[in-house]
Amino acid sequence: MNLKDTIRSIPGWPIEGVIFRDLTTLMQNPTAYKETCDIFYHRYKDMQIDKVVGIDARGFVFGAVLAYHLNVGFIPVRKKGKLPYHTISENYALEYGENTVEIHADAIDNGERVVIIDDLIATGGTIEAAVKLVKKLGGDILECGFIVELPDLKGREKIKGENIFSICEFEGD
Amino acid sequence: MNLKDTIRSIPGWPIEGVIFRDLTTLMQNPTAYKETCDIFYHRYKDMQIDKVVGIDARGFVFGAVLAYHLNVGFIPVRKKGKLPYHTISENYALEYGENTVEIHADAIDNGERVVIIDDLIATGGTIEAAVKLVKKLGGDILECGFIVELPDLKGREKIKGENIFSICEFEGD
Repeated sequence: MNLKDTIRSIPGWPIEGVIFRDLTTLMQNPTAYKETCDIFYHRYKDMQIDKVVGIDARGFVFGAVLAYHLNVGFIPVRKKGKLPYHTISENYALEYGENTVEIHADAIDNGERVVIIDDLIATGGTIEAAVKLVKKLGGDILECGFIVELPDLKGREKIKGENIFSICEFEGD
Repeated sequence: MNLKDTIRSIPGWPIEGVIFRDLTTLMQNPTAYKETCDIFYHRYKDMQIDKVVGIDARGFVFGAVLAYHLNVGFIPVRKKGKLPYHTISENYALEYGENTVEIHADAIDNGERVVIIDDLIATGGTIEAAVKLVKKLGGDILECGFIVELPDLKGREKIKGENIFSICEFEGD
């Protein structure tokens, strides 16, 4: 199936000039959701991954299934103030606004092989911050995986040197 | 394995007097995470579920895996302002603070059989709001499933009449 057709585009959300790519329509379509999760699993199953990092909150919906199937731990990167134990944090600029993300300081051991999953890469601020957090903990990032990439926003340039995989692209954003 | 032993207890977070039950340590333990997800799957696999509703954001980590394995759609209930399309909303009181949750108005069809998953039931405000949202859309709630229940906080009383399942309990909260 064409996964892109299951993603809803919402012009003007959350601010004027942005076309938001809404993956809830993909998630609520069982065939599309399964196919998306299976693409990630088949891509990463032979990479000896130790931990899957998912980014708050849509990254959880795809990263969790991947962690389950790889039989490895799932590690959340969360918005500031959501993780209860000792954390490290990174600030970043969003396409619209700014934010801070955190990870538990004991979530990843030095040298562990990590894949980071988020739903979408736009300007790349969130994934750049997540990459920095994982590296601070000594994680070896095998790849950053996304369902959607918006290439016009050049998010890849924020994480040069990392492997990047996206299932589909939307141009003209 | 004893799943309770994989849950980290953090006294005084997010406010004094509360013992926070931190499930990130369960999620990062592959055996515990798999066992938790499998308990839900085996419980719901023969109930002809049409949709799994997961509550923002830790409910996503468990609800998503359940939706995948049941081969049904995953529906997020999210904090206010996170869902981009037409929503309905419910306000509720938290154990510490208050909040609003939303669901997409087209997420559930009338008569669909639904299970709602969250990580934890404390005073029950969040699940009560989620139950109301699903019912407003005409969903038939088969059960509300949790990893942790804090029975002293009497969350069950908020959703009397619903089936409630929790994998483990912590007393003395």
